[in-house]
Amino acid sequence: MLETVSTNRVFGGVQGVYRHASCATGTDMTFSVFVPPHADGARLPVVWYLSGLTCTHANVTEKGEFRKACAELGLIFVAPDTSPRGERVADDPVGAYDFGLGAGFYVDASQEPYAAHYQMWSYITKELPDLIADALPADMARQSILGHSMGGHGALTIGLTFPERFKAVSAFAPIVAPGQVPWGEKAPSGYLGLEKQSWRKHDAVAMIEDGARLPAPLVDQGDADPFLSQQLRPELLAAACQKAGIALTLKMQPGYDHSYYFISTFLADHLAWHAERLADQNHRDLKPHG
Amino acid sequence: MLETVSTNRVFGGVQGVYRHASCATGTDMTFSVFVPPHADGARLPVVWYLSGLTCTHANVTEKGEFRKACAELGLIFVAPDTSPRGERVADDPVGAYDFGLGAGFYVDASQEPYAAHYQMWSYITKELPDLIADALPADMARQSILGHSMGGHGALTIGLTFPERFKAVSAFAPIVAPGQVPWGEKAPSGYLGLEKQSWRKHDAVAMIEDGARLPAPLVDQGDADPFLSQQLRPELLAAACQKAGIALTLKMQPGYDHSYYFISTFLADHLAWHAERLADQNHRDLKPHG
Repeated sequence: MLETVSTNRVFGGVQGVYRHASCATGTDMTFSVFVPPHADGARLPVVWYLSGLTCTHANVTEKGEFRKACAELGLIFVAPDTSPRGERVADDPVGAYDFGLGAGFYVDASQEPYAAHYQMWSYITKELPDLIADALPADMARQSILGHSMGGHGALTIGLTFPERFKAVSAFAPIVAPGQVPWGEKAPSGYLGLEKQSWRKHDAVAMIEDGARLPAPLVDQGDADPFLSQQLRPELLAAACQKAGIALTLKMQPGYDHSYYFISTFLADHLAWHAERLADQNHRDLKPHG
Repeated sequence: MLETVSTNRVFGGVQGVYRHASCATGTDMTFSVFVPPHADGARLPVVWYLSGLTCTHANVTEKGEFRKACAELGLIFVAPDTSPRGERVADDPVGAYDFGLGAGFYVDASQEPYAAHYQMWSYITKELPDLIADALPADMARQSILGHSMGGHGALTIGLTFPERFKAVSAFAPIVAPGQVPWGEKAPSGYLGLEKQSWRKHDAVAMIEDGARLPAPLVDQGDADPFLSQQLRPELLAAACQKAGIALTLKMQPGYDHSYYFISTFLADHLAWHAERLADQNHRDLKPHG
């Protein structure tokens, strides 16, 4: 059951915010969806946007400036939350911003007390897609995924796990190698236990090293991003892609930081890039047989 | 002295937030400015955006989606606050949202305890323009003004008072006749005293009736705006303009409400409309004499 939190007319479409009781997380989950103007009966491609540390669905919904492009390109834009929330949900013991609430890291936790609710992988890759497919005019054969920072990590790892499902994968300032940076220190042991091998399935660089592949991805990175050299390290992704023969496009953007000012500047470009790849799929579908 | 609160690279320009000690209000005032990419030494036209009830500079700065258009059109975009703020600043006695803090109504209050700080007319029309002229690459011969709701009221009344200064005046869902609607009930007596005549200089419809004129204005109004019939009443502006021979363009937008979803959908259109009128001025300046 989907509860409507709000709907607003915008750029000819509808920005909705919805809440539902999630089986995966055992909590209420809130997400936003923009549905562009479309013909009755049309089925539209779906772009998944995964947000970064501390964010909810609201940050990109308010500051992302994606709706004009989605309206012009005919894209549904889905923005989930970044963790389960609620009184019963365990947080970081000292309330740190990079673990616990707002920091689900798009994994299914196996360790208590987090395993009870932190099942974001299942939520994002199984439960929410089923719900979107049921509730929206979505063509689930045409999906793509992108994200920012921790959400870029999510987009890359999910894209690497489901290369057939996602026709395009891109990211803004992604965490590419959580196993090698401070932001990934607490999450592996906290969510997945001390066995570091289990984290390699949630580390884009490690996944590529281990043989996973994805459609040639696009990454934008501000060169004035304060997290660039210690937490993000896109050069690790570039090296892994080069070694694996993956045609990564990595754009260093001079003067841009880690904020939604950066994202909003280039998000429409990413969406146009996604739409090309989602339309190709459509084009193949429409080709006459024989 | 201008204190920089923040600057961020965005759409090739810089979004800044600044704070300064205001002589007009006797408080610190915060405002935001977007300066688009421009050639060294260039002087750019200035668009003033006045916000509505409860807002600060931040609402339009985060949700307005104006920077792409301003970058393309070469417009400086200034967003002031809507009232003085601080411990010493009197608020509505019961904290109502439509009077006091966040509700300065762009007037110079004559009544205590508001007169001490609520001098928003002087701040917006004199002090802040001087500061902008000093601090930014601004061509003060090319200014325009727009606003939302209470800020639409401000844009219209300031535009009507300075028809030579502002080459274009537009509004989203403006309060057009505060003397005739509930939102204008507290403000006249609270800020300006019981003599209702003093309010006519701050009532767009009354000003037009009293002979004030402005460049043909543009107004967008959502027809699903919950404040339309009781508070906004654009038909009063339309009637006054028709009687006065002012070529108002009033666009009723089906399905749109009073939110920034509405504003962000049409703000780039307004800016293009402003840029045309600001460029004409430039063009006239560049015409050879004789």
